[in-house]
Amino acid sequence: MSTRLFSFVGGSIGLWRIVRTDTLIGEPLVAAERLDVVSGPDAFSDPEARWILRGITSNERYVTREEKSQLAAKQLSLGRPEATCAALIPLRKNAAWWGLTQDERRGILEEQSRHIQIGLQYLPAVARRLHHCRDLSEREPFDFLTWFEFAPAHEAEFNTLLAALRSSPEWTYVDREVDVRLTRD
Amino acid sequence: MSTRLFSFVGGSIGLWRIVRTDTLIGEPLVAAERLDVVSGPDAFSDPEARWILRGITSNERYVTREEKSQLAAKQLSLGRPEATCAALIPLRKNAAWWGLTQDERRGILEEQSRHIQIGLQYLPAVARRLHHCRDLSEREPFDFLTWFEFAPAHEAEFNTLLAALRSSPEWTYVDREVDVRLTRD
Repeated sequence: MSTRLFSFVGGSIGLWRIVRTDTLIGEPLVAAERLDVVSGPDAFSDPEARWILRGITSNERYVTREEKSQLAAKQLSLGRPEATCAALIPLRKNAAWWGLTQDERRGILEEQSRHIQIGLQYLPAVARRLHHCRDLSEREPFDFLTWFEFAPAHEAEFNTLLAALRSSPEWTYVDREVDVRLTRD
Repeated sequence: MSTRLFSFVGGSIGLWRIVRTDTLIGEPLVAAERLDVVSGPDAFSDPEARWILRGITSNERYVTREEKSQLAAKQLSLGRPEATCAALIPLRKNAAWWGLTQDERRGILEEQSRHIQIGLQYLPAVARRLHHCRDLSEREPFDFLTWFEFAPAHEAEFNTLLAALRSSPEWTYVDREVDVRLTRD
């Protein structure tokens, strides 16, 4: 059965070693040693967890059929053996963003910020899974958790991708963002 | 503080008396005597509850700014003294719907089915609150819970509204729908 709900547990166990945790805007996330990515609703959690972030994969919110086809043709799955680097980027947008209508949000995300087109330029090197948090409960600390995997040779490219997005009009609506970098042995 | 999460508890207590429970498609919902509508995450539940459905209000998914302004100009709030009739309509859409992209779903919902325009015709008589369930967890029995309130004199109009929506192309994607009607004294 496919699983949509994932817990990201920052603590002392898990496949991924946390290399650095940078807070870009808003309240920091405390540092942890390792990250365990657990699927399903009954996530067994590290008794020494410093934090647990939950997110759920969901239907597409912004891409058109044409963009979805372009993405599907280029993207690779998570778990590639050579992709030993990862990033977990928890992000929250402000009330002004959520008060916009769908057409206004699409306009900022793509027509103004080229979010989808920028992402396409970094496929297939960077694999990605987006998790939504905002409608899991009314007390979630972030709206989205994006998980990226890439080979060490593509780390500089990945940083260029993030820099392009962070300088876009869409990012003026971001009021909390943390960037957790990880490697596996 | 505004609250986004609501529980609809079908059991033996609550302001609303359940008049009838009709299953239109899919698995039925068992009959209950009364409905308690509880806000917040720590919903105190009826120990004799037959069912509990949870949903969360969220950002607009389909309306444009112009449509939102039209809706805002005409709609009235819940809790009007004269609105002693209510309906709770839990609804689930199929995998084909959720596999569509945003532009395709908007095309079916509004350009083909006139969902927003039909709804506008019944304002201000019918007040409405939409709750999303699909991203609360991966085990929710419905995708949406819509709550309607209206005066007894507007019940026939409300039934006409539902008939129009149910005969639209959008409804070919509905695979579970229950219609719970209620009154308060």
